[in-house]
Amino acid sequence: MTYFPELDGPVRFDGAESRNPLSFRHYDASEIVGSRTMADHLRFAVCYWHTMRASGGDPFGSPTMERPWPLQPANVEEAKLTMDAAFELFSKLGVPFWCFHDLDVAPEGDGRQEYVANLNQMVEYAAGKQEETGVRLLWGTANLFSHPRYQCGAATNPDPEVFAHAALQVKSAIEATHALGGLGYTFWGGREGYDTLLNTDLKLERENLAKFLHLAVDHAAKIGFKGQFYIEPKPMEPTRHQYDSDVESCLNFLREFDLLGHLKLNIETNHATLAGHSMQYELKAARAAGALGSIDANTGDELVGWDTDQFPTSLYLTTQIMLEVLAMGGFTTGGLNFDAKVRRASHEPVDLLYAHIGGMDAFARGLKVANAIVEDGRLAEFVEQRYSGWNGTLGISIRTGDATLDSLADRALSGEEPERASGRQEFLENLINEYL
Amino acid sequence: MTYFPELDGPVRFDGAESRNPLSFRHYDASEIVGSRTMADHLRFAVCYWHTMRASGGDPFGSPTMERPWPLQPANVEEAKLTMDAAFELFSKLGVPFWCFHDLDVAPEGDGRQEYVANLNQMVEYAAGKQEETGVRLLWGTANLFSHPRYQCGAATNPDPEVFAHAALQVKSAIEATHALGGLGYTFWGGREGYDTLLNTDLKLERENLAKFLHLAVDHAAKIGFKGQFYIEPKPMEPTRHQYDSDVESCLNFLREFDLLGHLKLNIETNHATLAGHSMQYELKAARAAGALGSIDANTGDELVGWDTDQFPTSLYLTTQIMLEVLAMGGFTTGGLNFDAKVRRASHEPVDLLYAHIGGMDAFARGLKVANAIVEDGRLAEFVEQRYSGWNGTLGISIRTGDATLDSLADRALSGEEPERASGRQEFLENLINEYL
Amino acid sequence: MTYFPELDGPVRFDGAESRNPLSFRHYDASEIVGSRTMADHLRFAVCYWHTMRASGGDPFGSPTMERPWPLQPANVEEAKLTMDAAFELFSKLGVPFWCFHDLDVAPEGDGRQEYVANLNQMVEYAAGKQEETGVRLLWGTANLFSHPRYQCGAATNPDPEVFAHAALQVKSAIEATHALGGLGYTFWGGREGYDTLLNTDLKLERENLAKFLHLAVDHAAKIGFKGQFYIEPKPMEPTRHQYDSDVESCLNFLREFDLLGHLKLNIETNHATLAGHSMQYELKAARAAGALGSIDANTGDELVGWDTDQFPTSLYLTTQIMLEVLAMGGFTTGGLNFDAKVRRASHEPVDLLYAHIGGMDAFARGLKVANAIVEDGRLAEFVEQRYSGWNGTLGISIRTGDATLDSLADRALSGEEPERASGRQEFLENLINEYL
Amino acid sequence: MTYFPELDGPVRFDGAESRNPLSFRHYDASEIVGSRTMADHLRFAVCYWHTMRASGGDPFGSPTMERPWPLQPANVEEAKLTMDAAFELFSKLGVPFWCFHDLDVAPEGDGRQEYVANLNQMVEYAAGKQEETGVRLLWGTANLFSHPRYQCGAATNPDPEVFAHAALQVKSAIEATHALGGLGYTFWGGREGYDTLLNTDLKLERENLAKFLHLAVDHAAKIGFKGQFYIEPKPMEPTRHQYDSDVESCLNFLREFDLLGHLKLNIETNHATLAGHSMQYELKAARAAGALGSIDANTGDELVGWDTDQFPTSLYLTTQIMLEVLAMGGFTTGGLNFDAKVRRASHEPVDLLYAHIGGMDAFARGLKVANAIVEDGRLAEFVEQRYSGWNGTLGISIRTGDATLDSLADRALSGEEPERASGRQEFLENLINEYL
Repeated sequence: MTYFPELDGPVRFDGAESRNPLSFRHYDASEIVGSRTMADHLRFAVCYWHTMRASGGDPFGSPTMERPWPLQPANVEEAKLTMDAAFELFSKLGVPFWCFHDLDVAPEGDGRQEYVANLNQMVEYAAGKQEETGVRLLWGTANLFSHPRYQCGAATNPDPEVFAHAALQVKSAIEATHALGGLGYTFWGGREGYDTLLNTDLKLERENLAKFLHLAVDHAAKIGFKGQFYIEPKPMEPTRHQYDSDVESCLNFLREFDLLGHLKLNIETNHATLAGHSMQYELKAARAAGALGSIDANTGDELVGWDTDQFPTSLYLTTQIMLEVLAMGGFTTGGLNFDAKVRRASHEPVDLLYAHIGGMDAFARGLKVANAIVEDGRLAEFVEQRYSGWNGTLGISIRTGDATLDSLADRALSGEEPERASGRQEFLENLINEYL
Repeated sequence: MTYFPELDGPVRFDGAESRNPLSFRHYDASEIVGSRTMADHLRFAVCYWHTMRASGGDPFGSPTMERPWPLQPANVEEAKLTMDAAFELFSKLGVPFWCFHDLDVAPEGDGRQEYVANLNQMVEYAAGKQEETGVRLLWGTANLFSHPRYQCGAATNPDPEVFAHAALQVKSAIEATHALGGLGYTFWGGREGYDTLLNTDLKLERENLAKFLHLAVDHAAKIGFKGQFYIEPKPMEPTRHQYDSDVESCLNFLREFDLLGHLKLNIETNHATLAGHSMQYELKAARAAGALGSIDANTGDELVGWDTDQFPTSLYLTTQIMLEVLAMGGFTTGGLNFDAKVRRASHEPVDLLYAHIGGMDAFARGLKVANAIVEDGRLAEFVEQRYSGWNGTLGISIRTGDATLDSLADRALSGEEPERASGRQEFLENLINEYL
Repeated sequence: MTYFPELDGPVRFDGAESRNPLSFRHYDASEIVGSRTMADHLRFAVCYWHTMRASGGDPFGSPTMERPWPLQPANVEEAKLTMDAAFELFSKLGVPFWCFHDLDVAPEGDGRQEYVANLNQMVEYAAGKQEETGVRLLWGTANLFSHPRYQCGAATNPDPEVFAHAALQVKSAIEATHALGGLGYTFWGGREGYDTLLNTDLKLERENLAKFLHLAVDHAAKIGFKGQFYIEPKPMEPTRHQYDSDVESCLNFLREFDLLGHLKLNIETNHATLAGHSMQYELKAARAAGALGSIDANTGDELVGWDTDQFPTSLYLTTQIMLEVLAMGGFTTGGLNFDAKVRRASHEPVDLLYAHIGGMDAFARGLKVANAIVEDGRLAEFVEQRYSGWNGTLGISIRTGDATLDSLADRALSGEEPERASGRQEFLENLINEYL
Repeated sequence: MTYFPELDGPVRFDGAESRNPLSFRHYDASEIVGSRTMADHLRFAVCYWHTMRASGGDPFGSPTMERPWPLQPANVEEAKLTMDAAFELFSKLGVPFWCFHDLDVAPEGDGRQEYVANLNQMVEYAAGKQEETGVRLLWGTANLFSHPRYQCGAATNPDPEVFAHAALQVKSAIEATHALGGLGYTFWGGREGYDTLLNTDLKLERENLAKFLHLAVDHAAKIGFKGQFYIEPKPMEPTRHQYDSDVESCLNFLREFDLLGHLKLNIETNHATLAGHSMQYELKAARAAGALGSIDANTGDELVGWDTDQFPTSLYLTTQIMLEVLAMGGFTTGGLNFDAKVRRASHEPVDLLYAHIGGMDAFARGLKVANAIVEDGRLAEFVEQRYSGWNGTLGISIRTGDATLDSLADRALSGEEPERASGRQEFLENLINEYL
């Protein structure tokens, strides 16, 4: 049985002139760009939730997706069919990684015992699929936001019994990740925030969230899971405010509660823009703190105020992202996870193929452009030159701590007005266009 | 000479039935609310920049303000006239405090020597005015954003010579604040950010900004200034992004660079909303970190994307703010500074009176409402009850660290599905309306 | 059987001092305000979709609502139970009106014949309920956005067969409305827009939408339905852009296609703010065109980019709305329809009571405040005085067409610079606070 | 004397491999694309206000721009130097057009007589410059927003005397445009809106604005000016709301007041996005109404809430714009006017060169990409196919008016559920990337 009969094997790289929309025009996994292969640079992952399980329902409409696999598997047998389709897709796309929530792969079942049993069965099945296809787990996670019990948060719920349920799921999901050789584990605080401050003890909730993360870190140590933990910023939606709202708020939280050594950030474009930040800023801010871990590769509509989770096709965006990835020397445990969904009206399975192929090609081009910018060197040289004063006598005296307000004031009083240097924004924007 | 002939003395409290728009209907400085006077709760300050110096110019239009005092004083003698008008206004409004930038009170002059000399003269003059009127300095600050030399930042400028000029001004402004018995000193990083990431070394800039703040803290220690330092968040404008973008980003910055013991936050409503946050959230987030210091009392239009700095009149807003101020036990060094400007078409001096009187009355009502909510107790009781589980056995075992993921998972596996409790948002919103 | 045992009869008016959250503190239906009763001014309606049928599901979560009636009635018998609960609620709240979509009251059934049959049965049942309770139908409408067939629009679908299905539903819903004595019929173009312009023939789609409205108008004439048609603006969500995006775009559309005589506007607060407009502006813009028909009374969070449809409690908002309603001489066919839903975590039936009671009380207060402003007259007088020049010689010569650019230029050349008058925004904002 | 010594003659087209940032890499004026030259397709104009007169001041900072010509000419002699620089720039850039406000080219002078005299002198001087260089006037306009008299609007001012002053300026500016052979005249209602609705008679103000436009149209007829009038949408800024807020509101206004035959739209990217619309939508909406006239070619930052007026470099944006221009058969009277300004920190004259060259090159590429998309035909074919049902029997019966709700309902009742067709958004987004 095949779920994607549109392709009789892996997507082929046919080159930029190809008019076959089911071929790669730019992504050639084995092509060397700079010092490594495209595959090594990009480390693509497909997400299970949007791709295999999203129904196309929205707040104003019913499900639309036509899928030859079970979208809402009623039991483990059905869930295995969904997983068969998933690994067929992963293989045909040629992505090296996948990502999942506990409840994506396993039916929730009737009661928590059944939940655990279902998950265990599906992990075993997934292990076989991984073995068979060579596809690996980039990261796992737990769904702590869909079930009604989490309506007022999971780790930040006013009721500690709910915290315990969240703990069960995170324990199970970490262990599942560990069993599948996952390289990381992600926390996205879907409802870890508030709907109204009127009913909320913000301080206690944040402390409880920190406690929760510490418990997870401790558990990983206990079971020997060495994967990287990530926290994923998002400012709002579903709740009015989430505590992990952007990169800086996550860093503040991790510092405050002594978690910065344990978690890095998994950053998503659409979450960045919902927070009012450019993706490039969020990546740089995380990188400056040594905390950039992995990337959720999608895009949003900046003129729309909710999470549209679209597939990324802007070459400007993919170039900016790959510039940051190159600047940090490439991913270690992380990768580019397509946390993106096809539009509600793109309801056929083949739309999933178009979407992923287009996203992969857009990143392949972004990588090539970013690499060309780096190799050319003019952009970096401009920036280096711009700040060169900080390597001069005055700059060093300030940075090393010899200068004081008094000594600097004396200098300003006795010196000339500094000469201004143009910021050259237009020149630099044109420069980027040279590589596209 | 009088600059505000509309009033022949201090604004009178005439009670809620007054139809005199130049009287207070609610603000009675000596009225006791809870355990202290209104004046002690509210600690109003008038800002020098908007109120005495704003011209009414905007990006599309020329100055409009008619002022019987010099708006752009050409020299110290003119600047003294402006200050005469300022202290007449402070006195007539009956505010206990004022705030200023170095360049608000002193003409910049020709060269940095003259800047220092002008500032010194104006500080001496201000000291006399303070003595005369009893009005005190809530905080001082330096204008590091208007002069062209700061076009690419002050402490974060690519050129360390500009850093030195900023150091001169901050040294001068701290010393001026000290000389005037100021209770605090504020840093607002007007251009401490970037216009484009293409030309920016974000990591270096943030480090330099931290160094700058440390130099200021050291200088304060050296000269014996014991006032409270504040940092004031704003996400953007004038630059595309400022590093002190919101409360959490400021806290992250202060933690990262070991400054949290030295600076608290001065939080402004319009800056909060430009960052996509409610004022109440920003206040709570700062308060949870023990870092809420002072408040810039204004408001913005949430449907407009720039800093309108309007006078606050919403009783919901003033109530929310005063709830937070009461919850932290009142201000210590801080206060409510009207960092607000009259609209460009409100070009007569009397509009300044209407504006401040209206803002003071709105906060007086907000205080009374907030105090009534606190004294009534139903809101607090609801919240306490909502989180009561965290004082039970399970809650305590989690918070004190006895629980583990394993023990919590066992509990979830063996227990019942937790009963959900309604968040009661609508009930609580109605409750607030009871007090208005 | 009772569905709302929290109340043993209609909500009582207990006065402002009441601490019973299930009483009215301000809404006294028979109280005379100005020249008519509160009930006549406010003409409250409850909406069936949010109140009786909303599950609490959101894009990240499952249903949460606990309801003793069928939320998703499987057949007409179940649907009758839901309707029993609805009319019990309407009666207990004491609202004179309700509103519904075809598919709110009738199960969709298997095939379109069954749809029609189900709807007919439910209309008959509703007629009995109306008779029994005295509650009347403010307006009806058809759900043309939930079913997958409408994934690319209804009247604007690329496939005319879908247009035909939409026609069936609108015909049925108009006839149902007619049968129930409905005072109006509303079109909200849920998916009448686009997700991407790449696949869209915007011109054709708008023409087809106009054709659709003409067909409805013609059908109403044919069957003798004299109710008022409304169009309801919303800028986006579920689609990226809807053609009826705000008041002005609706007016443009109605003018372009000769529909302005046939439809008025039904304006919703949260839709206004999503379009970047204040509710007051949208109401005024519609009123200036003689096209303000009815109001969807809810509110949104202006710092959040999706339709939260919250119950309105801001007294500023309700005052502004009632000022416009008073200014147009009160509603004729329209009313205040609570197109609002309780938060997902307010999952108990009693939350529906709190929510509606709070909204009704907030509007009762808004009405009283608005009426006081009108009776006092100072606000209107200010505005009249401000524009008084337009009743002078020059103003009249311009407005009646005697003046030309040449004659006006001559006047400007020979005259003085006009004296400027302050806009007095702060004074006026304070004035509004006098009435609150 | 040369003002732009960086170039010793016109900017050269050096081809895509050029590394000279002062050369064109893509814009070759005489290159044929499709059926006409690039110059004929693009019809570039430089705007006088930003390029020659902008000081670099912003709400938080002083002027920064270094200009070898007078930025604020004190008299006509100085203004001529500024104009010399302007036409040198136009010529070196090789743009065929320019645009100006009355007060850009002529000093306001002391009194309105002097204003007229100054303008007349400058028009004469400009005529000579045009003659000399061959550069033509795309459109003229009047500045009705900078002077304090316009603080509450020009045509919408509460004082008809201000209306008369605006009339004087518009008369003068139309006559200046006529004298210079201008192809069009633009109205941008900078302050034709409100700051607060509390003091505003919206209905009267809109009527007066309409009257004003009629007076201008009549005057044009009287003097024989045949140029095209344009109205330029912008939602807000400087005021809180402008009546010409977006394309649809302008169309509504023009229809309401019988002006649609007299004015087309001049549409600007940054104004579109401030209104929450994509530029492509605004262009399509205007084009569907036959009202797309001219384009202000700039861009904004969609994550920032004010008008940044940046130079356009996104190839996606320029492609979208040129697709619309091609679809309407090219400009007639209109063109691409760079209503864009260099960043405040790009303070050197050479930055103006980089900026315009980059913008021109970005549009040249956009044109080539758009033309390739059109010539390839796959995109158009997809759309045509998608709507093909509207050319079938059913579609035609609906569009021509044979169908009724009854007949369509019968069809739906007796037919099958329509088959859904995927919207293929991802496929189409990938398709666009093929051409880049």
